[in-house]
Amino acid sequence: MGSEVILLDTYISMFGMRLRTALAEKGVKYEYREENLRNKSPFLLQMNPVHKKVPVLVHNGKPICESLIALQYIDEVWHDENPLLPPEPYKRARARFWADFVDQKVFVVGRKTWATKGEEQEAAKKEFIEILKTLERELGDKAYFGGESFGYVDVALIPYYSWFYAYETCGKFKIQPECPKFVAWAIRCMHRESVSKSLADPEKVYDFVQIFRKKYGIE
Amino acid sequence: MGSEVILLDTYISMFGMRLRTALAEKGVKYEYREENLRNKSPFLLQMNPVHKKVPVLVHNGKPICESLIALQYIDEVWHDENPLLPPEPYKRARARFWADFVDQKVFVVGRKTWATKGEEQEAAKKEFIEILKTLERELGDKAYFGGESFGYVDVALIPYYSWFYAYETCGKFKIQPECPKFVAWAIRCMHRESVSKSLADPEKVYDFVQIFRKKYGIE
Repeated sequence: MGSEVILLDTYISMFGMRLRTALAEKGVKYEYREENLRNKSPFLLQMNPVHKKVPVLVHNGKPICESLIALQYIDEVWHDENPLLPPEPYKRARARFWADFVDQKVFVVGRKTWATKGEEQEAAKKEFIEILKTLERELGDKAYFGGESFGYVDVALIPYYSWFYAYETCGKFKIQPECPKFVAWAIRCMHRESVSKSLADPEKVYDFVQIFRKKYGIE
Repeated sequence: MGSEVILLDTYISMFGMRLRTALAEKGVKYEYREENLRNKSPFLLQMNPVHKKVPVLVHNGKPICESLIALQYIDEVWHDENPLLPPEPYKRARARFWADFVDQKVFVVGRKTWATKGEEQEAAKKEFIEILKTLERELGDKAYFGGESFGYVDVALIPYYSWFYAYETCGKFKIQPECPKFVAWAIRCMHRESVSKSLADPEKVYDFVQIFRKKYGIE
């Protein structure tokens, strides 16, 4: 398919990492454009006038916003290569449910492990572990959330792994001893080139978090 | 298709109304079970252990939670009758974007028009009108958000119309003079039996809201 694909993104965005991973899984070539969120490009504001956020996938001039929606778009347009969503409606609904759970819970509570302090931070750490344990139960003995093959929930969730170092360092806690199956899954995903080349360097994520914490006096 | 469909719901839930509308559009017969949210049934807790919320669509014993996910499930399982999502990936992504916008914006800000007071309420009223104007721009001159046919965004959005009377009465403002195209669209939708029989009575929604406001001293 002859087509022009542009990704408006920022390096440390877990939402952007999802699209980088999916495009790599599909073997889609694209132009990557790093956005400065303190000085957004006119093109970003034109492509996503409603939310003004990254990532935006621009395919032949048309924008697709919101990362889970863009993941589904990628899966529908480039369907034959490594399908992300299964064909059965119930399994699709279940995958969508868990990806939505990631957005509702992992993002919000993960952020609190480094952007809050004191009691709020302690509560967030406990809740974060509980959330990962819920995900471990859904994973069960499967290799991936998608079963034997790497799929939609895996793509939606794995970017958070690049934030674990920041969560753990700022929160002064360790995830692996509490959630060994989750971390084993993450390491399994990291063996895929589509993932390892798409995720941010954990130390760079941590640097960003530290700058934020200093700016807002969170330490 | 021989199948057992149960809907766990509450009468005034805009999320439940979505599923009632979609099931009516598809001509699917189902058992409706009204839940008391202050005393949730063991079956609801079993079917939605993660969020413990209505609505839940239970199809042949399997639960589908989260209303937009259940809408897509209904559309995939009963696909031939009144398709809700269009076949083209870009149009699908666009429909998903606006349905997500409804959940992010219309629900949250609509609630503030009756669950807050003073300056916060005044700001919410202004923002609510702006949100509807954004939706009016997306609607443009089309009959429905889906174009000529009633579709996914229409189903996701129309239940809020049954809450307008509560928003307007509690907020002491009028929506129609500000957003006439939006209200014309809503009335157009209400001419469909699938909608009119699925939406709650606006006065009953208002009664619920008044009980809530008295309980929390919002008046």
